[in-house]
Amino acid sequence: MSHRFVFIGAGNLATHLSIRLKQQGFEILQVYSRTENSAKVLAEKLDADFTNSPGNILKNADVYVVALKDSVYNEVLSQIDFGNKLVVHCSGSMTMSVLKNFAENTGVIYPLQTFSKKREINFAEIPVFVEANSKKNEEKLIEIARKISDSVSVMDSEKRLFLHIAAVFACNFVNHFYVRASEVLAKKNIPFEVLKPLILETAQKVQESNPETAQTGPAVRFDENVINKHLKALDYDLNARELYNSISKSIFEFHKKSNE
Amino acid sequence: MSHRFVFIGAGNLATHLSIRLKQQGFEILQVYSRTENSAKVLAEKLDADFTNSPGNILKNADVYVVALKDSVYNEVLSQIDFGNKLVVHCSGSMTMSVLKNFAENTGVIYPLQTFSKKREINFAEIPVFVEANSKKNEEKLIEIARKISDSVSVMDSEKRLFLHIAAVFACNFVNHFYVRASEVLAKKNIPFEVLKPLILETAQKVQESNPETAQTGPAVRFDENVINKHLKALDYDLNARELYNSISKSIFEFHKKSNE
Repeated sequence: MSHRFVFIGAGNLATHLSIRLKQQGFEILQVYSRTENSAKVLAEKLDADFTNSPGNILKNADVYVVALKDSVYNEVLSQIDFGNKLVVHCSGSMTMSVLKNFAENTGVIYPLQTFSKKREINFAEIPVFVEANSKKNEEKLIEIARKISDSVSVMDSEKRLFLHIAAVFACNFVNHFYVRASEVLAKKNIPFEVLKPLILETAQKVQESNPETAQTGPAVRFDENVINKHLKALDYDLNARELYNSISKSIFEFHKKSNE
Repeated sequence: MSHRFVFIGAGNLATHLSIRLKQQGFEILQVYSRTENSAKVLAEKLDADFTNSPGNILKNADVYVVALKDSVYNEVLSQIDFGNKLVVHCSGSMTMSVLKNFAENTGVIYPLQTFSKKREINFAEIPVFVEANSKKNEEKLIEIARKISDSVSVMDSEKRLFLHIAAVFACNFVNHFYVRASEVLAKKNIPFEVLKPLILETAQKVQESNPETAQTGPAVRFDENVINKHLKALDYDLNARELYNSISKSIFEFHKKSNE
């Protein structure tokens, strides 16, 4: 398999995905980014060309990977002639069909993970979801995805949207609660450090049991004593207080419902 | 150091703490629980006696560890004559002073972790917070705590309350979002399995960077396109939709404020 890639986008996802593809023996010909320097930085890691002009995107790749912000798809893609090449995007919430206006052969390759440029990640463990507009393209994407991950599934756009929503709950919202926790600690000059083992164990617990079983704390046992103490202590920050109150209610209602 | 312990309570925390103490060379004389079988199960692991009658609690221990639900303190403790022995509780949200009515020598030993009976845990890594009503008792508790954990600090009741609130945000509320995520997946028959690497990486990220820096997702970049798609998809569950909406707003407002 000797697919050559062009990356359209040079953000966190593009960085991790392109480096992994190269590691696994694929050739990355070029990186495009609207910001020339971003394109250059990533291209140097990949021994690839770079450009910030859609008109200069190379024609001789086999697969074009679009890793752009959803809002700039039209602006960028409408300037590129993809011919009959395979064009895939990496977005959880965009349907595959958004690519129809720009290319004949289309698909999606969606790695489910939170990427930061500076953090190394074991890509083999990341679940990768693919979709394509034909059986042939699907087979091609499966073949590529299996080279970079041990967990590859075919999933359509509608399901992928729900997967993305779940990821927002389990990653972005979760991280916001880490932020809120660190704010509560800061109020009493307690270092965030002390929470780290708890945060890790909370995530490790649900690797082995389901999260409903793992639920602990005052809300799930409806311990009004503790809840009221906490609400009172949070009086200095009405926003945090309201958040505490509404999530406690949500936990309580949810578990009452599950036990009915 | 040859302190002998009696455990009053046989729940998750009592189980982990007593086993760790025994491992580290302390003797556990007896376990009390209102449920005889719970007392028995734990006592067998500790080579200890057990009882479900407060009147039968042994007098010859050096330290009595109260690990009861907050709401049953009075009922149980008022039936026990502790003499001048050291009585400590393990509760985040109770002040040390609640023990004043029952004992002369009082303290708190608070390990910050989420405990399940079946999960093994590396106790040495758990931050343990102690408090005592005298310098002498404080020294005794520090000495004990250092035998079971590599991270021991003295912390007063007021600060410990805030620590507990932060733990509720970072553990109990976080787990609720795992639950919500699994519900969203279930709607489309997607196994919870696929989220596990993301959940772990989200927790691992904040081991090294602060959670504000780690925040990603549509809410923090105010990506209305994606947010609106997600809200629309959640139309089938108004409760989940409302939760999605309010946490997204919370993230957005919080980060707007931090950047001002």
